[in-house]
Amino acid sequence: MTASAHGQVSRTCRPRLIQPSLIFAVLATFLPAQFARAEDPLPSWKDTGPKRAIVGFVERVTKEGSPDFVLPNERIAVFDNDGTLWCEQPAYFQFFFAIDRVKALAPQHPEWKTREPFASLLKGDLKAFAASGQKGVVELIAATHTGMTTEEFSKTVSDWIATAKHPKTGRLLTDMVYQPMIELLAYLRANGFKTFIVSGGGIEFMRPWTEKIYGIPPEQVVGSSGKLKFEMRDGKPVLLKLPEVELIDDGPGKPAGIQSHIGRRPLMAFGNSDGDQQMLEWTAAATGAPFCLLVHHDDADREWAYDRDSKIGRLDKAWDEATAKGWTIVSMKNDWKNIFSTPGR
Amino acid sequence: MTASAHGQVSRTCRPRLIQPSLIFAVLATFLPAQFARAEDPLPSWKDTGPKRAIVGFVERVTKEGSPDFVLPNERIAVFDNDGTLWCEQPAYFQFFFAIDRVKALAPQHPEWKTREPFASLLKGDLKAFAASGQKGVVELIAATHTGMTTEEFSKTVSDWIATAKHPKTGRLLTDMVYQPMIELLAYLRANGFKTFIVSGGGIEFMRPWTEKIYGIPPEQVVGSSGKLKFEMRDGKPVLLKLPEVELIDDGPGKPAGIQSHIGRRPLMAFGNSDGDQQMLEWTAAATGAPFCLLVHHDDADREWAYDRDSKIGRLDKAWDEATAKGWTIVSMKNDWKNIFSTPGR
Repeated sequence: MTASAHGQVSRTCRPRLIQPSLIFAVLATFLPAQFARAEDPLPSWKDTGPKRAIVGFVERVTKEGSPDFVLPNERIAVFDNDGTLWCEQPAYFQFFFAIDRVKALAPQHPEWKTREPFASLLKGDLKAFAASGQKGVVELIAATHTGMTTEEFSKTVSDWIATAKHPKTGRLLTDMVYQPMIELLAYLRANGFKTFIVSGGGIEFMRPWTEKIYGIPPEQVVGSSGKLKFEMRDGKPVLLKLPEVELIDDGPGKPAGIQSHIGRRPLMAFGNSDGDQQMLEWTAAATGAPFCLLVHHDDADREWAYDRDSKIGRLDKAWDEATAKGWTIVSMKNDWKNIFSTPGR
Repeated sequence: MTASAHGQVSRTCRPRLIQPSLIFAVLATFLPAQFARAEDPLPSWKDTGPKRAIVGFVERVTKEGSPDFVLPNERIAVFDNDGTLWCEQPAYFQFFFAIDRVKALAPQHPEWKTREPFASLLKGDLKAFAASGQKGVVELIAATHTGMTTEEFSKTVSDWIATAKHPKTGRLLTDMVYQPMIELLAYLRANGFKTFIVSGGGIEFMRPWTEKIYGIPPEQVVGSSGKLKFEMRDGKPVLLKLPEVELIDDGPGKPAGIQSHIGRRPLMAFGNSDGDQQMLEWTAAATGAPFCLLVHHDDADREWAYDRDSKIGRLDKAWDEATAKGWTIVSMKNDWKNIFSTPGR
């Protein structure tokens, strides 16, 4: 029976209490958005190889009866954060947070005026801070990310990120997210995927804002973490952030973080640097036909251009492996129509 | 317009291509089960205080406009496993697994015949094993739970649990789960809750079977864990289980495990022993009106009866706090119609 047959019968019968269109309206309310409208779910992606590869893959693994069909509960997609979901130049944004915390806490720490790495940071001398090496980073993280309760830290991050701006663009840091990736996250979720962040960044630094910005809830955020200590304060239970490392969720730590937090192999993995190489290898070695993608920062006009020689977001070994194994590589310059969302969205 | 009005109009108009009942049939397909049928979602629970408290709570937090309304993404329910979701007597079932592994691995370890705690375990002398104390447990876990890849361990657990039987009832261990709790898990999920296990048991020991038995996917299982090491073996990435503790997810470790894996405060928490006390305190101290429940093992006829003096599943301090603070306490004897599912379900 065709729609016109419906119409003919209906027209011969007044009053029409049940309209055929009503069923479709009712259905549309309960069906995922992509069924109800035929709009392009990835409008910021050009119609080039990466978009076709993503859409082709998603259609294959979600089509029942397809040899590549994957049950919804096994549709796990993992995303690096810095350089993959949001900008990471001229420095990881969490570093801006740490510097701002040092400035805010300095009045309570007069000794920092002469103690490294704090003295250099307070003077704005990042070169001298860099000279303090890993020891300096550890001291900076301990001073700004530990010694408080998880709730205190969460509030500090939330307050900070509500106004923190990018030093070059002047935009809110939370506007420095990649619009094509925001669309990709939503597209995957509409197709039954669970989207996870797997980042070298701090797990407690990301959780206060990932749900609002990316639609990724705290339980789907994996990151570097320190140990927590339960204690009672004035009869109220708190978790204290200790200056002891639990997991460095970077490089070979990413598969460990994935196993610890997710407990099964991802079906899709997205990264942009050598820090993501093992996560991509771990995903690529799964049974079936997993999907691995690297974002290549090659657009100096609209963002930054960097790969092999970069200190932050270095893409060298992972690039070689991606090209050798045929993983998808996105050129930000050639494959993305837009990089950032329209200001003031 | 009433249903009878629908019927009258329809009857005057043949052929009826769009039947009113079709809309309801279509709707029923897309609506959660509890709307489509008025059946009791908790048939194994007697109509006593605990059931009324649970249903009343769930109705309050899921009713839009209610002062206690909680958004679906914040509806987190955490469940202890041993003694809360499945039986924990006469010993934790994971201990049965460890003993069976010692027996299976013994031919490769001739030295175990004379080395404790293995010699006692191989002789079946559990009293002598107990005398080896915490050192014996650590050696047992190291020998049976570490030194292999996560995939090898997962397969060993899956193979074992497919046939492992309870020493007293002779039933499959996976049939020793509490039917009222299975119903509760499904009821909460149907009401938009995410259900998590937060257990002192091993995270990698539980994950191979929790999805099938409880409907809880691996990424919603929190448990005690060891460190993992990423390495390449014959060009294939693996994660090696190391004999180093990452988290003891028991007592004060449970809130730490919840924060690490979930990252937000539960709305409901379910336990049965002092090992769950801090998890319940952490949940009870949340803003709003959280729900805490203890299962009391007081049914020696149908299961076991134990509380203050028990070595396994000891319920002493948590009991005092529950009664003082008005947390819900379930008497397995008086509040549950059935404890286990019908054999062969």
